[in-house]
Amino acid sequence: MSGAHGYERVALIGLGLIASSMARAMRRAGMGAEIVGHARSEATREAAMRIGFVDRVTGTAADAVEGADLVVLATPVGAMGAVAAEIGPRLKPGATLTDVGSVKRAVIDAVGPHLPESVHFVPAHPLAGTEHSGPGAGFASLFDGRWCLIVPPDGDGGQAAADLAAFWRRLGAKTDVMDPDHHDLVLAVTSHAPHLIAYTMVGVADDLSRVTDGEVIEYSAAGFRDFTRIAASDPTMWRDVFLTNRDATLEILGRFTEELFALQRAIRTGDGDLLHDYFSRTRAIRRGILEAGQDIDAPDFGRAGGR
Amino acid sequence: MSGAHGYERVALIGLGLIASSMARAMRRAGMGAEIVGHARSEATREAAMRIGFVDRVTGTAADAVEGADLVVLATPVGAMGAVAAEIGPRLKPGATLTDVGSVKRAVIDAVGPHLPESVHFVPAHPLAGTEHSGPGAGFASLFDGRWCLIVPPDGDGGQAAADLAAFWRRLGAKTDVMDPDHHDLVLAVTSHAPHLIAYTMVGVADDLSRVTDGEVIEYSAAGFRDFTRIAASDPTMWRDVFLTNRDATLEILGRFTEELFALQRAIRTGDGDLLHDYFSRTRAIRRGILEAGQDIDAPDFGRAGGR
Ligand SMILES: NC(=O)c1ccc[n+]([C@@H]2O[C@H](COP(=O)([O-])OP(=O)(O)OC[C@H]3O[C@@H](n4cnc5c(N)ncnc54)[C@H](OP(=O)(O)O)[C@@H]3O)[C@@H](O)[C@H]2O)c1
Ligand SMILES: NC(=O)c1ccc[n+]([C@@H]2O[C@H](COP(=O)([O-])OP(=O)(O)OC[C@H]3O[C@@H](n4cnc5c(N)ncnc54)[C@H](OP(=O)(O)O)[C@@H]3O)[C@@H](O)[C@H]2O)c1
Repeated sequence: MSGAHGYERVALIGLGLIASSMARAMRRAGMGAEIVGHARSEATREAAMRIGFVDRVTGTAADAVEGADLVVLATPVGAMGAVAAEIGPRLKPGATLTDVGSVKRAVIDAVGPHLPESVHFVPAHPLAGTEHSGPGAGFASLFDGRWCLIVPPDGDGGQAAADLAAFWRRLGAKTDVMDPDHHDLVLAVTSHAPHLIAYTMVGVADDLSRVTDGEVIEYSAAGFRDFTRIAASDPTMWRDVFLTNRDATLEILGRFTEELFALQRAIRTGDGDLLHDYFSRTRAIRRGILEAGQDIDAPDFGRAGGR
Repeated sequence: MSGAHGYERVALIGLGLIASSMARAMRRAGMGAEIVGHARSEATREAAMRIGFVDRVTGTAADAVEGADLVVLATPVGAMGAVAAEIGPRLKPGATLTDVGSVKRAVIDAVGPHLPESVHFVPAHPLAGTEHSGPGAGFASLFDGRWCLIVPPDGDGGQAAADLAAFWRRLGAKTDVMDPDHHDLVLAVTSHAPHLIAYTMVGVADDLSRVTDGEVIEYSAAGFRDFTRIAASDPTMWRDVFLTNRDATLEILGRFTEELFALQRAIRTGDGDLLHDYFSRTRAIRRGILEAGQDIDAPDFGRAGGR
């Protein structure tokens, strides 16, 4: 039984959306590697076996990594330090340890110290996800055409990083190497701050006593509906993201607030030209995303046409 | 030739996304009414004739409303007052004048004074749209299953409002009657404030010199991609929305900013419980929207599965 890129046994710690999608994509790619899984709860471990995307599960993370060539941390970011402390002594010499966390500097700081010299530590982040979570939410095509950023603690990560990148490409992703701090800033802009903003706006709607929840729900128009989907994402995952990517997220939110004040002032003073110019500029970014193939152009994501 | 609900001739002033979708939905419903159209530019009038969703176009709005039983203002909100001043004297006695503007109090104030006593004025707002605009963007099913709010200037609008509601139901919509000021507050929450926030966030990303536009575009993850779609909406329409629904939008943005500061403080002080509780609460709103049939539940709007 020969796995891809020498990974004959792969251990997944955490068996939710990302891990279960990875396992399915590995199978789809015809990788022969044995897939061993561990999740915190018995219920999730049983679900993973029942769905069948792992070959076996273990009761502890330490048991799962025994003899594994590739170990993937796929828990919420805040849990990774403790998992690393538990598995560190049991990792196979020469193995690669990676993770899929949405934040990279904090994971490097929390995980790195627990790893023996003989293990290659190559953090990574697949830029793919949905608002659903858990072992049943995964699917093999989740990473197709999306980026997986390889984020070595320093330098380019050598052969282990090159092998991990090749592995991700076989799962359908495009890969790129990025520095940890730059990763955290880019993601604060393209994901973390937008999520906090969406959570906030949905919270405001929920709180407003002069507009009932029923009205918010029934009359939710384009814009707000999208925010509610974003704000339905897993609370634990996102708490951990904000607590661990604190500085970059707060920096971007600070910029956001400044800019929002400027637009509010334009509304108050009736400065239609400023508003029109601003709204015209933001269209260019959208065009770029469509041209880069990072989203589809069906009106309203095809929702409107389907009703 | 007998139109629905006694509308034998319908005039559409403005021939963009909403008007062209209305015309297509009228045809789909088998309404026999003659559809006369006017738009500001020759190019749009020609496009409407070429696509074929109007029976004829006229060079002026005043000519279009001649003999029409139903006149629909479907221009940006800021243009409606001037159009009303032009067409007021030419409206047929007993005709119904309506509009589809996203804001209602300002339209009532701008349009009402120009209408003769003999005309029924019944403002309305279909809660359906996409980020695309222009005569080619419309489709017959745009309003299917979505709400159209009927917003009489005072009271219930009588028979003319009942007829207009029945007309919208034949276009596929569900209808409800709402008071103008309440409409403007509800929409500030469910649509207007979220749009300004999305425009702002995309503007911030565009401005940030340490993250290139290329990175923003390539690595735009869930969350931000949705914002870019919202922020690609028509600049003129949205400028007019904010200028005409100023007070309610600014009120909601004020609440939003307060709440955002509270969450920023929780991030700064590491208050994970507050964040987790907040993020759990907002999920309930999403569930309500799905149960009310106001959105679909395919992961990532079915984008992820399709790639
Ligand atoms: N969802 C996205 O959009 C997305 C995208 C890119 C990256 N990521 C990152 O991927 C990681 C996983 O996200 P996900 O969406 O797959 O989450 P998920 O569906 O909620 O799954 C998380 C998994 O981690 C397990 N877990 C939690 N704490 C644990 C612990 N202390 N020890 C062992 N297992 C534990 C959970 O087990 P139980 O079920 O037993 O609790 C569950 O199986 C996160 O770090 C996230 O930042 C997510
Ligand atoms: N899009 C949405 O999501 C949505 C949803 C609900 C309600 N609404 C409301 O519906 C209305 C129309 O929106 P839309 O999306 O259909 O806009 P659109 O696609 O941009 O079309 C606007 C139309 O109005 C015409 N127009 C502009 N100024 C005019 C003037 N002074 N005289 C005559 N025609 C003029 C334009 O003609 P030219 O092409 O010649 O410029 C164009 O045909 C707006 O009031 C908006 O608030 C929009």
